[in-house]
Amino acid sequence: MKVVCLSLLCLALPVAADVFTDAELATARELRERALDGSGGFDITEDLTTRIGPRLAGSPADAKAVAWAEAMLKASGFDRVWLEPAMFPTWSREFERVAVKSPVEQAFEALALGYSPATPEGGIEAEVVMLDDMEALETVADDQVDGKIVFIRNRMERARDGSGYGPAVQARARGAIVAAEKGALAVLIRSIGTSTNRFAHTGGMRFDTGVRRLPAAAISNPDADQLERLMELGEPVVVAMEIDAQINETYTSHNVIGEITGAVNPEKIVALGAHLDSWDVGTGALDDGAGVGIIVEAARRIMALDQRPDRSIQVILFAAEETGLWGGRAWAQARRDEIGNYQLAAESDFGAGRIYALSAKVSDPAWPVIEAIHAELEPLGIEMAGRRDASGGPDFIPARPLGLAAVDLHQDGTTYFDYHHTENDTLDKIDPDDMAQNAAAYAVLAWLAAQSPVDFGSGPELLEASQGSE
Amino acid sequence: MKVVCLSLLCLALPVAADVFTDAELATARELRERALDGSGGFDITEDLTTRIGPRLAGSPADAKAVAWAEAMLKASGFDRVWLEPAMFPTWSREFERVAVKSPVEQAFEALALGYSPATPEGGIEAEVVMLDDMEALETVADDQVDGKIVFIRNRMERARDGSGYGPAVQARARGAIVAAEKGALAVLIRSIGTSTNRFAHTGGMRFDTGVRRLPAAAISNPDADQLERLMELGEPVVVAMEIDAQINETYTSHNVIGEITGAVNPEKIVALGAHLDSWDVGTGALDDGAGVGIIVEAARRIMALDQRPDRSIQVILFAAEETGLWGGRAWAQARRDEIGNYQLAAESDFGAGRIYALSAKVSDPAWPVIEAIHAELEPLGIEMAGRRDASGGPDFIPARPLGLAAVDLHQDGTTYFDYHHTENDTLDKIDPDDMAQNAAAYAVLAWLAAQSPVDFGSGPELLEASQGSE
Repeated sequence: MKVVCLSLLCLALPVAADVFTDAELATARELRERALDGSGGFDITEDLTTRIGPRLAGSPADAKAVAWAEAMLKASGFDRVWLEPAMFPTWSREFERVAVKSPVEQAFEALALGYSPATPEGGIEAEVVMLDDMEALETVADDQVDGKIVFIRNRMERARDGSGYGPAVQARARGAIVAAEKGALAVLIRSIGTSTNRFAHTGGMRFDTGVRRLPAAAISNPDADQLERLMELGEPVVVAMEIDAQINETYTSHNVIGEITGAVNPEKIVALGAHLDSWDVGTGALDDGAGVGIIVEAARRIMALDQRPDRSIQVILFAAEETGLWGGRAWAQARRDEIGNYQLAAESDFGAGRIYALSAKVSDPAWPVIEAIHAELEPLGIEMAGRRDASGGPDFIPARPLGLAAVDLHQDGTTYFDYHHTENDTLDKIDPDDMAQNAAAYAVLAWLAAQSPVDFGSGPELLEASQGSE
Repeated sequence: MKVVCLSLLCLALPVAADVFTDAELATARELRERALDGSGGFDITEDLTTRIGPRLAGSPADAKAVAWAEAMLKASGFDRVWLEPAMFPTWSREFERVAVKSPVEQAFEALALGYSPATPEGGIEAEVVMLDDMEALETVADDQVDGKIVFIRNRMERARDGSGYGPAVQARARGAIVAAEKGALAVLIRSIGTSTNRFAHTGGMRFDTGVRRLPAAAISNPDADQLERLMELGEPVVVAMEIDAQINETYTSHNVIGEITGAVNPEKIVALGAHLDSWDVGTGALDDGAGVGIIVEAARRIMALDQRPDRSIQVILFAAEETGLWGGRAWAQARRDEIGNYQLAAESDFGAGRIYALSAKVSDPAWPVIEAIHAELEPLGIEMAGRRDASGGPDFIPARPLGLAAVDLHQDGTTYFDYHHTENDTLDKIDPDDMAQNAAAYAVLAWLAAQSPVDFGSGPELLEASQGSE
């Protein structure tokens, strides 16, 4: 029995059995329990991080990761597996050295930011100007920073939902642009991360066309503390920075896609995403080896059923997320004219913590379906987030202007930014049980979304609708 | 009233008031409360780790640390401050690179062990033989390791008293000796540390005269896990190791000593120790900047009293502990003929965790004094350890064969080996309140030991007595 309720009363009191058949719900529960018992997702992440390890977009390991992913998806039993090109400018790190020269001599633990240019031969040595945050940088007089190294000391706050990242990361994304305009020689930032362990956190930085590109590096939180203490001694603090890094020609990597072809409406697609690339310093276990394992395991559970779902389910392993959402941009560009077929998108790219909430951006008629799906996720400890909005995850952001319907399964990110973008993002940081809970949630979501009695509303109408929503 | 009880009954039921005067006990309590309220110890550690930072024995920072310590002790108000020479062969690290070459290419986070020789120009590249522990290395057939890189994977267990260190550290101390005898090219060990963060733990290694010196490095725990996984793939694992390090000529550093000169028996000395040097990779906050802060703060509290103690109290900041107890050896050598004057020795060299127990090695007549001192430490949460033995700490070990009476104030070391000998040993790992508890305990110990109605029995007799004790 498939009955769709559209009345307000029905919206307020959704019942899963009003939306899905008993058989569909029984299958969802079976998927949930089997995925919870398994460790298949962790095994995939272990294999990726062991056999490939760090896999910076455009590096030799990128091509190896693509080949690994294609073979792994084929061996997993997808009905179709293919590659789609994604082009981007590569960046590679040779080394970075950041050290205080005066009033004492000490080396800092540092990582150049992604796309930082190299310093001139022999490096830069200059006095440090310490600023609290981007606002301080934007308002400081040019002659205070001209010819100096700007140190932005803002500190990321820890939060379950990772909400401390957005405000703090501005220093990484835009610090070098503003500092360049004011005549600075280079930028140092306190790592955008929550750990007090002595790891620097790398990550992408932006450049505006026509603005001089400044070398930029992050120092670890303990080193940032030390630099603050040295500044407090009251004498000028001189730092030497040397970065060797290259921005190279355009490289073509690939999004790797596996499809479970739908039995009834194969052209309508539920899209699960994760990204295959990682930064170059850790093995990218949490970011985003975990996501790869979670969504592929969810799909494997569905493929193990006796029947194919009504709609297709695609697993998309995106290229070059870290260096600028290049895989996501290529994916969106290729789907400009058929976004209506992409029923619902959800990416796993926030580590391996347990999912605690769901939010969604779908058309109003599809909302009861989301609530019915949520009813099957609730036994996993997943609540309905109090907002009707979702991005789907970083790699689906480029498709957002097309009106892509999306679900966010919010993971507990309390410790995610302790490891994210550091050497310390390694397999041992993952709890296999937490990954299994994630795989169970994605399996239930994908299965029920593929069986939904209504479409989720991707298209320009959704974009307009959501612009007016809460 | 000073009454010393020697009967067994009295030993079983010591009462502080039987040993010390009311005024002495009141002073002990005042010292305890004032030290608990203060942050002077932390401030000293902050100053050392900020102004000097890493201070490897024999490095330029070693001389700066000695000058810092001499000035700091003089400014603290000690009655006498002086330097005593300690000679040792220096070692310096230029770099180390350890990377898997086959079946995959990945770099490991590694640190050369102290006194490791450099590898030949261009490094070593060889197949890895993985062994469980030193016993496995000792029993493996020579032809299994000949021409190969030996990887010893034993794992240190976490414990409050640090008891996991002794068994595990054999791989670091002696692995290269045994591997050299069997024809190996180099040694890799799993770091002797308890953290799953991606820091390698350095530390000293030994060499036997006449045995070929092998290059040796530790890899972090996550990298050791990764190497184990790569071995389990079943193909030969080839690793490249390149170490540049130098063993240089003899260097003379100094033990830096401050004395509170006793008012009654100045020639009798209570000796508090810590070591001034650190490994080269962190700022040596826990190992042993904390110890420096703790014992100097304890002495400052005593110097702030209206009166000098009966006996002298010396604070000894030892040189070159990490690279072979060189300061401790020089100190013991210089006191061979006057060990009887050294009443009681206690070193703080186990981080900044709270003290939870006391043990002591003293003559039987002095035991009631130890129990009376313990009664004043009990309010700090310090219990009497169930054994009548103590080393006094690493730098007093060379004086142990002379029969040095000693107290061990056992610190909670549950997390100590997460940071010890790593880049991550930085100031933020210290809780100032825990340091204050330590300073309070050392202040009470030093004060009451200096007022003790009996000597503690240092000398050959103590050595013999203790050999027969439990």
